[in-house]
Amino acid sequence: MTAPRRHGRWPGLLAGAVLAAGAGVAPAQTLQSLQRPGAPLLLAAKGSFFVGGERRLATPNQVGLFGGREPGHVTVGQMYVEYMLPQRRAPTAPLVLLHGCCLSGKSWSTTPDGRPGWDEYFVRHGFAVYVADQVHRGRSGFDPSTSNDVRAGLRPPDALTRIDTLNEETSIWRAFRVGPAYGRAYPDSQFPVESIHEFAKQVIPDLYDGTQRPNPNLDRLSELATGLGGAVLVGHSMGAGFVLEAAAATPGAFAGVVAIEGGCPFNREPFSDAEILNLARLPILLVYGDHLDADTGLDFSWQPGFEECRAFVRRVNDAHGHATMLHLPARGIRGNSHMLMLDRNSLEIAALIEQWLRRNVRRPAPR
Amino acid sequence: MTAPRRHGRWPGLLAGAVLAAGAGVAPAQTLQSLQRPGAPLLLAAKGSFFVGGERRLATPNQVGLFGGREPGHVTVGQMYVEYMLPQRRAPTAPLVLLHGCCLSGKSWSTTPDGRPGWDEYFVRHGFAVYVADQVHRGRSGFDPSTSNDVRAGLRPPDALTRIDTLNEETSIWRAFRVGPAYGRAYPDSQFPVESIHEFAKQVIPDLYDGTQRPNPNLDRLSELATGLGGAVLVGHSMGAGFVLEAAAATPGAFAGVVAIEGGCPFNREPFSDAEILNLARLPILLVYGDHLDADTGLDFSWQPGFEECRAFVRRVNDAHGHATMLHLPARGIRGNSHMLMLDRNSLEIAALIEQWLRRNVRRPAPR
Repeated sequence: MTAPRRHGRWPGLLAGAVLAAGAGVAPAQTLQSLQRPGAPLLLAAKGSFFVGGERRLATPNQVGLFGGREPGHVTVGQMYVEYMLPQRRAPTAPLVLLHGCCLSGKSWSTTPDGRPGWDEYFVRHGFAVYVADQVHRGRSGFDPSTSNDVRAGLRPPDALTRIDTLNEETSIWRAFRVGPAYGRAYPDSQFPVESIHEFAKQVIPDLYDGTQRPNPNLDRLSELATGLGGAVLVGHSMGAGFVLEAAAATPGAFAGVVAIEGGCPFNREPFSDAEILNLARLPILLVYGDHLDADTGLDFSWQPGFEECRAFVRRVNDAHGHATMLHLPARGIRGNSHMLMLDRNSLEIAALIEQWLRRNVRRPAPR
Repeated sequence: MTAPRRHGRWPGLLAGAVLAAGAGVAPAQTLQSLQRPGAPLLLAAKGSFFVGGERRLATPNQVGLFGGREPGHVTVGQMYVEYMLPQRRAPTAPLVLLHGCCLSGKSWSTTPDGRPGWDEYFVRHGFAVYVADQVHRGRSGFDPSTSNDVRAGLRPPDALTRIDTLNEETSIWRAFRVGPAYGRAYPDSQFPVESIHEFAKQVIPDLYDGTQRPNPNLDRLSELATGLGGAVLVGHSMGAGFVLEAAAATPGAFAGVVAIEGGCPFNREPFSDAEILNLARLPILLVYGDHLDADTGLDFSWQPGFEECRAFVRRVNDAHGHATMLHLPARGIRGNSHMLMLDRNSLEIAALIEQWLRRNVRRPAPR
């Protein structure tokens, strides 16, 4: 057990601030505190585009605005992608960053306390960086036809996707391993606890209900990487599950996989032997933070998923693959939460991943 | 009438391509065609944050994931904002770009045919650029409690927000003034018609039903501009209506308004005399494109809104204000669609707006 029972390193001001915030009186962070730039940033290019999508007739209950009440086509299932290209490029494949449950591409940008995100770290270090919003949320949009049909009485209310969330007290603070009880952080916690409310704003509805097959995110990742001539998939949490599953299905599209704090696999049947052989074609790095076996008092623990990923590493390597587990505490790096790309030592972890990428992934990448 | 009845300038290949696409067989654009960078881009900083939001207990039907089934707080009504700061800053206030109906901040980024967007244009020209997603869509997320309550049978199906759309054939092609009939562009059209499918992917659901008062977007704009020490609001379409309304309510927060192709006002009662006096404190530029009086065969025309905005300019200036109408055809610039920031001559229009900003807006800005 690694979960301490005493107060965290911010027992006074910050725990107090958080508890006061629980009553809705915490002062908002200033915009200045949310924008703390570093050195100037030189890019070869930046921009955005969409990958894929299904073009189809709008349903009769979906009104085309601006007088457009005649039938017409809309597109759903596309994936929004924004990119930054470095001026001096490292000899590695591009990175595709895929966020986790209930979040968006914002996960990889500025941290809740205003520090630069991994998107900026990696482009500064010579990587082409592509940040996606998962299909069915954020700027990728979602398919509104079920909601409109329920509204019109054409489908029963329980046809609606249940929209879950991450609440601050249990899902984020306790389950994401900030600390054992809301307002109390682990003594070694790296999470920027004073910005817990800012992080909570990143949580947005996900309209992918998990049952659609094929999972459109997997196809979009494959199409994106193919269009880029190979890419390393970097996924977090649910996104880590998706990048492993995409790599298992179409390994030739990818140059490598970095799966952070996700299951092996995530929320599906175990990988088949054929899938393991596919995965063995790619360099794979799994990353986990600290306090995985903490007793949070919730009906959830990271430990089984972590153990499953350790078994996955063995299985891939038994198939002559190249899988590595980066368990941060084993490297002496303590206190990382589930949102380790937002933690105070986030760039230290990025540097470890960069080191692995430079040693294990080459460009041109697909094998 | 400015709507020609003959075929557009792409009568062969492109009209044919679009019509074939109507049958679902158009080839996708390559990722290369969607990424056409210009010169290297030097930024003082880039990043993102959220403005405002209401922190409250999740509803019982909104499950906190990862074991978080105990009650907890979530945040709704926040506004996602991404920013780029120039290395050499022009002597003007920051710009806040607010997109229109059914779209997201993507409107201001790379065009559907891969050219740089206005976000990049303005930061290259020394402006601090802040791009928002309207509250209740995109990375700002939305409040899912109504949908969850309907799903659970606690509220009737018609409590759901009707989610409308922009379809390609009528809402976009005809109502947004690409051409008189799907597949036929105006001869002078500036819209990148070969990328019509790519533009359609920008259309995403908006869960703001237009009735919530106060409109959370107005408060977020005021909070953002106040936090920045003054900003010029640049809004398009519905967003143009919102920026005028925000400026009418809290003019001291802003340094100016650029309202592009929106009503004056948008979808509400006329501005009161007190609101006009407030608006008269700020430099205001209104921008409209071409073919406003075209007969599209739809029950919608831009002409009444345009006339309303001309009357608005007179009313503001009669109150000793500084409002200007930039009607592009009156400057000899023809063929611009409703999405003029995506048109082929988009940067020519940006340059006209920049000229107006440099002449009319100073930093520090609030007056």
